[in-house]
Amino acid sequence: MAKAPVLTPQSEDFPRWYQDVLNKASLAENGPVRGTMVIRPYAYALWERMVSEVDARIKATGAENAYFPLLIPESYLHREAEHVEGFSPELAVVTHAGGKELEEPAVVRPTSETVIGEYMAKWVQSYRDLPLLLNQWANVVRWELRPRLFLRTSEFLWQEGHTAHATAADASSYARRILDEVYADFMVEVLAIPVHTGVKTAAERFAGAINTLACEAMMRDGKALQMGTSHELGQNFARVFDIGFSDSDGNQQLCWTTSWGVSTRMMGGLIMAHGDDSGLRVPPRLAEVQVVVMVVRDGDDGEVSDAARVLVQRMADLGVRARLDDRVDVQFGRRATDWELKGVPLRVELGPRDLAESTAVVARRDTSTKGPVGIDGLAASVPDLLDEIQASMLADATERRDDHTFDVAGIEEALEATETGFARIAWADLGVEGEARLASDAVTVRCLQDAAGGVPSDPDAPGVTAIVARAY
Amino acid sequence: MAKAPVLTPQSEDFPRWYQDVLNKASLAENGPVRGTMVIRPYAYALWERMVSEVDARIKATGAENAYFPLLIPESYLHREAEHVEGFSPELAVVTHAGGKELEEPAVVRPTSETVIGEYMAKWVQSYRDLPLLLNQWANVVRWELRPRLFLRTSEFLWQEGHTAHATAADASSYARRILDEVYADFMVEVLAIPVHTGVKTAAERFAGAINTLACEAMMRDGKALQMGTSHELGQNFARVFDIGFSDSDGNQQLCWTTSWGVSTRMMGGLIMAHGDDSGLRVPPRLAEVQVVVMVVRDGDDGEVSDAARVLVQRMADLGVRARLDDRVDVQFGRRATDWELKGVPLRVELGPRDLAESTAVVARRDTSTKGPVGIDGLAASVPDLLDEIQASMLADATERRDDHTFDVAGIEEALEATETGFARIAWADLGVEGEARLASDAVTVRCLQDAAGGVPSDPDAPGVTAIVARAY
Repeated sequence: MAKAPVLTPQSEDFPRWYQDVLNKASLAENGPVRGTMVIRPYAYALWERMVSEVDARIKATGAENAYFPLLIPESYLHREAEHVEGFSPELAVVTHAGGKELEEPAVVRPTSETVIGEYMAKWVQSYRDLPLLLNQWANVVRWELRPRLFLRTSEFLWQEGHTAHATAADASSYARRILDEVYADFMVEVLAIPVHTGVKTAAERFAGAINTLACEAMMRDGKALQMGTSHELGQNFARVFDIGFSDSDGNQQLCWTTSWGVSTRMMGGLIMAHGDDSGLRVPPRLAEVQVVVMVVRDGDDGEVSDAARVLVQRMADLGVRARLDDRVDVQFGRRATDWELKGVPLRVELGPRDLAESTAVVARRDTSTKGPVGIDGLAASVPDLLDEIQASMLADATERRDDHTFDVAGIEEALEATETGFARIAWADLGVEGEARLASDAVTVRCLQDAAGGVPSDPDAPGVTAIVARAY
Repeated sequence: MAKAPVLTPQSEDFPRWYQDVLNKASLAENGPVRGTMVIRPYAYALWERMVSEVDARIKATGAENAYFPLLIPESYLHREAEHVEGFSPELAVVTHAGGKELEEPAVVRPTSETVIGEYMAKWVQSYRDLPLLLNQWANVVRWELRPRLFLRTSEFLWQEGHTAHATAADASSYARRILDEVYADFMVEVLAIPVHTGVKTAAERFAGAINTLACEAMMRDGKALQMGTSHELGQNFARVFDIGFSDSDGNQQLCWTTSWGVSTRMMGGLIMAHGDDSGLRVPPRLAEVQVVVMVVRDGDDGEVSDAARVLVQRMADLGVRARLDDRVDVQFGRRATDWELKGVPLRVELGPRDLAESTAVVARRDTSTKGPVGIDGLAASVPDLLDEIQASMLADATERRDDHTFDVAGIEEALEATETGFARIAWADLGVEGEARLASDAVTVRCLQDAAGGVPSDPDAPGVTAIVARAY
């Protein structure tokens, strides 16, 4: 008799599968205020690894971290017309503080273009101060009517980069660099999630931007998830916050600014792009625990635990993030199921019989294959094996995405294709009317790409393709 | 003619010196909402290094990081009577969100005992789930009427640890372990700030705690700064949030909880414990830039920059955080003053004449001494020199503190001593009446210590000493 599944199968009910994974792998729970989220330790450790990898890439582009206040005077939001229109419905407002009603209400930041713009204006005087490249790791609040953990929460954690440049070209190239060298590189190389990079249509642009670049990924139900965005803000914020500089000829000029962010939403992407009916599958480069060495049961003298400890130490010496599980008082099957749920890439199982034969059972989470391996060379083989798993997970996700991406000729075909995946359609054929028609069926243009599958320099050039999908 | 000082001298006006350092070293500014703070990149990099050092020590005690929501239902705060009484005057309240008035207002967390208590109650079932050791890095809001950057701001950044234990003894020993192994160890070993550890009097306890342990440091004006606290909460929060467990005999029991935190206030401590009339002095273990190699001016073929770059690389190879300053278009004196202001521990100055003689000038920030050193062995000597600076800064701060600490016999002597430093007085002689008398002159009991200068097991035992001071 097959054992009852721990999770609702993906094919049966994907959203319920997602909720099951969050619960059973102890990843996250709803907070007490509607739409907020509690991130539990195992998930938070994954987020910390994401932060560390993204942060290193951001710093490599020359940006520096800083911190700006959570609370923003309500009037700041009103200065940029499109910006306030976009964010007003989502604002949380502090009206009372210190036992009194505030003279001016303060909004809890939904994003920080306005307050950072105010300080950029002070700090930038001359062309020598440019580019000014800032980033902050912070929480933001955007009130959500239909919250879903990690994907849409009223509070989420993110980084928001904000930069000021002397020229449109410099701003544009920096926004593009963030998209490619920070976001797409991290998502592909660390998360093992292939992403489409492209530009948003005018309808999907950030409130206040002149151009929005995005990374879009396919989840295992064929829907799209926007994983990160990088915005060219033109001179919109520079104009209203007076971010100006004197150029090398002494003439006063307005700056060109950008902003860009990725958030805890990537946790949702990780779960839905790789997870299967047994739980999470975490790519090795991201995994906080890359290998778990499990003592199946111990011998009389603790010799199995001793051997397991030696294995863990050998792996640690090779730079592998290995953990010992010697909780022999907990049923082995329960522990194995739990490590599967948590998506640890490699499981090494060691019992008295294995030890007697100088072998251990090695189980790969990505392929669900397992078999005996000689104990002596085991630790030394792990780094290569982890690399292989990393590559295999990316190849697997890429193949799955490409198998579910369809070139289509018209609206009806696009609607049909997006029942199970992405549709690619010539942007010239779709146009803004077609986009509106798709939107009425909850299908959106995720991004526009040039013929080579890259970010188009001109979205209206011939050969530009729209990738359309249902989206989270 | 002596050049005009960049900063107001400490002896002339210490608070103004502090404000000058914040401005001239580009550390922090006021935010637009009263009492909030903008942390600029150089200061934020120091904060990131503090976070990394404290975080590693917290994890070494077995605690795991997690994240709980910013917004807490107002009713949660009301469950613990002393807690709400302590925090009510400082709360910021969100009354409107998503365009509507909320049914129940949400407070912006001033601290998270309540919301974390609610989840601990769900997660702890059996003695096997204990101890539950959680920590979060987060922003909190406590409305300040007399804000001062880093020291008292309406929003600040901190870590807050929250733990649940099966016994009072385990909770007590863990709270103590955090004080000693995490906080005091970090402050002494990394910040090079000697701290007194002890217990707070009942009057100075955290709202809702049965016991508060603290680290107290002396600033260079002789005033005290509370640098970190660790609280035993008894069963107060366990009772109202129903954090219980079944023990090994199957009996239902209430947990014992703790909470503990350090914040961006430590940045204020760093500035005021080490800073001098030339600016910050950053201890090498904390410094983001440990050594700056300055090109005084370059030769015709860029040979000085080349040599400086080689020096930086050699130091980096030895694990030293070294930076090149080759901005020869900016006046050398201005750059040197700026690195002094920023407190970089070691400055290496290299010009064409030095290079011709195969020497460079090495300047120590801690002692303001400088002199020529042969270029060949220079990089290799830096790690030891940084260790020496670290030790010398701690010794210097300890001597300064001890020179300004006076054993006194009565209230009048205590008041006099606290004009310039700390007073030590027998707690049996001072008592709660004496404490109240001192408080009317803005002098407070910073902590109680046993005869050996440690945390007393019983504050009312004979030989317990009160350390009293004016405080930030």
